[in-house]
Amino acid sequence: MNTVTLIKKKRAGEALSADELKFLVNGYTAGEIPEYQMSALLMAIFFKGMNPAETAELVSLMLHSGSIVDLSNVKLPKVDKHSTGGIGDKTTFLLAPILASCGLAYPTIAGRSLAHTGGTIDKLEAIPGFNCALTLKRFEELVSTVGLAFMGQTEEICPADRKLYALRDVTATVESLPLIVASIMSKKLAEGIDAIVFDVKCGSGAFMRTEKEAVALAKALVATGKAAGKLASALVTDMSEPLGRTVGNAIEVNECVEFLRRGPQDPAPDARLQEITLALAEEMYVLGLKKQGKKAPGKAAVRKMLLSAIESGQAYSKFLEIVSMQGGDTSALDSGLPLAAKKVPFVADKKGFIGAMDGEKIGWALTGLGGGRRKSSDKIEHSVGFSFEKAVGSAVKKGEIIAQVYIKDSKTGNLALRMLAEAVEITARPPRKPKLIRKQI
Amino acid sequence: MNTVTLIKKKRAGEALSADELKFLVNGYTAGEIPEYQMSALLMAIFFKGMNPAETAELVSLMLHSGSIVDLSNVKLPKVDKHSTGGIGDKTTFLLAPILASCGLAYPTIAGRSLAHTGGTIDKLEAIPGFNCALTLKRFEELVSTVGLAFMGQTEEICPADRKLYALRDVTATVESLPLIVASIMSKKLAEGIDAIVFDVKCGSGAFMRTEKEAVALAKALVATGKAAGKLASALVTDMSEPLGRTVGNAIEVNECVEFLRRGPQDPAPDARLQEITLALAEEMYVLGLKKQGKKAPGKAAVRKMLLSAIESGQAYSKFLEIVSMQGGDTSALDSGLPLAAKKVPFVADKKGFIGAMDGEKIGWALTGLGGGRRKSSDKIEHSVGFSFEKAVGSAVKKGEIIAQVYIKDSKTGNLALRMLAEAVEITARPPRKPKLIRKQI
Repeated sequence: MNTVTLIKKKRAGEALSADELKFLVNGYTAGEIPEYQMSALLMAIFFKGMNPAETAELVSLMLHSGSIVDLSNVKLPKVDKHSTGGIGDKTTFLLAPILASCGLAYPTIAGRSLAHTGGTIDKLEAIPGFNCALTLKRFEELVSTVGLAFMGQTEEICPADRKLYALRDVTATVESLPLIVASIMSKKLAEGIDAIVFDVKCGSGAFMRTEKEAVALAKALVATGKAAGKLASALVTDMSEPLGRTVGNAIEVNECVEFLRRGPQDPAPDARLQEITLALAEEMYVLGLKKQGKKAPGKAAVRKMLLSAIESGQAYSKFLEIVSMQGGDTSALDSGLPLAAKKVPFVADKKGFIGAMDGEKIGWALTGLGGGRRKSSDKIEHSVGFSFEKAVGSAVKKGEIIAQVYIKDSKTGNLALRMLAEAVEITARPPRKPKLIRKQI
Repeated sequence: MNTVTLIKKKRAGEALSADELKFLVNGYTAGEIPEYQMSALLMAIFFKGMNPAETAELVSLMLHSGSIVDLSNVKLPKVDKHSTGGIGDKTTFLLAPILASCGLAYPTIAGRSLAHTGGTIDKLEAIPGFNCALTLKRFEELVSTVGLAFMGQTEEICPADRKLYALRDVTATVESLPLIVASIMSKKLAEGIDAIVFDVKCGSGAFMRTEKEAVALAKALVATGKAAGKLASALVTDMSEPLGRTVGNAIEVNECVEFLRRGPQDPAPDARLQEITLALAEEMYVLGLKKQGKKAPGKAAVRKMLLSAIESGQAYSKFLEIVSMQGGDTSALDSGLPLAAKKVPFVADKKGFIGAMDGEKIGWALTGLGGGRRKSSDKIEHSVGFSFEKAVGSAVKKGEIIAQVYIKDSKTGNLALRMLAEAVEITARPPRKPKLIRKQI
């Protein structure tokens, strides 16, 4: 086989066969096909796409380029959620203990913060002692015994995807539906799961800006998941403002602890965070039952049971159990993780309504504070972050506090305040607030 | 400026500014922009094209990446022809001495054989002693004093084009109209010419398979040539069979010598070769007069004068003069360059008509004989080649000779015979023979 001929074939819009894709992906991973040929192929794929069979083959090649977690000893239905990434999205820390306390297994292999996006692993590492660098064996043991575990991505899982993604990132070939789908699916399948629910975000803080793009991605993800023999569904959800009241690392863990610790009489700390968490949990629970051949009770009954798992403290106990098993200091959680000692208010510069909050800009503002990474070798400051007191639609007076900003020093603090001012728009009239859950696929 | 952002811009179909193209082309040439980013950009250009302003800017950047021949001391109008490449195309060796003997200057900087395409420089080097490795200074002197000179491409001319072309070749990004135009034009402008005539081939042996593609390329070349301040025109010509009766290196030089040496009573050795040579010469001569502010006489008068330059021996004298000045052995020309001692006939395997001759396959058959290069470091065997006794449309009997094949050894000879059998189609009915000169642009 000849690489140039295969690039030409894709360039002409033809489908590549399984053998041809194998030659290309394995050759690239092994260093036999140079980056300059692969990037030309990726750009041809950007323009000409891949059909479902090609996408499934690419998933399989990337999946089998590395280790696959063997969870066959775990008899519970193994479910996972994948979010396409949003600002302040902390649902993983809520869903995992809720569902594990309801009899499902929830294995999480997650990423780190980069550019304007936060990382599940960085947030967890804000807990003193918490260790996400698990061996595959230890990860399997924890999922078996506790029902959940959090692991960072390792060199062993999907090396082909890692190498391809790094190239896509520097060659403007990230935004290709089949390539996005294959990258997500290969990593998720490597977790050894039975069922997956996708949370495809759309809006200013999301990878997919429009609902149309998000729906297309959601459909492709569900189809590819099903083609790989998994149960799959998706929600398309709004990300035109941060999810929950906090954005940062330690501060998001604290918000989650507050969420999980509240009793039946306490109000939900944040209605949007509660709504999306319960909607995703419902989807996952129903797929988990389906895997066991059971019929789910009515929607209201499922939601009642999930709420009860939170309000009874079961879910929080599960969270404390896994934190402890992964070396984390649970007493630090009880008292709240320490935030940066300095705090400056971000205030409204005029009277009006919060018209829009640009998630990407808020993400960059956190990176400006030191709470994210510009490049993957950067260190993270866990204690900085934002606590929002207003949301999209809130009325504000001039000088009123929109957010508290926890800062390391005044230089980065002032930079972050300027970035927030660009991210948060104050309008004369109240904005039309988009629906949180836009579609169910 | 950020390379990824610029790739995205082109990917979205937007035009790149002069500054942006400068950043990309100069950065790539200097090794600051890696090949994997440039190949992704090239593929985006393949799909989204470049407008005339971008193409002109790319020409200028590639031109000024290296030396430009200074022919300002040459007072004669300086004309050149560019052929997009055909099989058995030896018109350069005919046009240069014909036009130089008619008072024009004809500077040629030419390439070498690669893959299925022949190279002007390789053919000339079949003449013992002939030296194409001229300095720019010596090249200028020869054009000044003799009116013509043949030089191989050097490192000094258009290094950016050379580096880009090498990358396009291995990333399936050759077939892009603006990139083809820019590559051709930058090298031609570097010759310091006043006027250029393009011979855009179409058919099985050509880069452009269809007339439509060839006309588009011809128009783009003429427009870009004019935009660069040159006189320019183009012919779209047929390349659905080899041009002339021979394909090889020494054997093509011999055919040219025969062409140039014939007297007024001798028939043209090959009607198609004569027709295309005179048509191109006419175009060039008319542009040369235009450059001098003179009006050309009627077409018949020009053709008569050109024919007379051949039949009087003036053109052949000019050819012998430059061969001698470039160190070549003119006596070897007079007696005919030696061909390979072994000769095998390629015969018809059935009765019928020569229906088609695939030029690309014949080119590969020559390479199979050792008369071309698979890779640029290969050595060329000048003495091998084909002498066709039949052309498209000829009637053949079973066992009748179609071509004599001059071979080095029987192994490569048998390979070439098999490749010829694939290239030459024998049909029951005579084919419709395409017009030789299809369009004038």
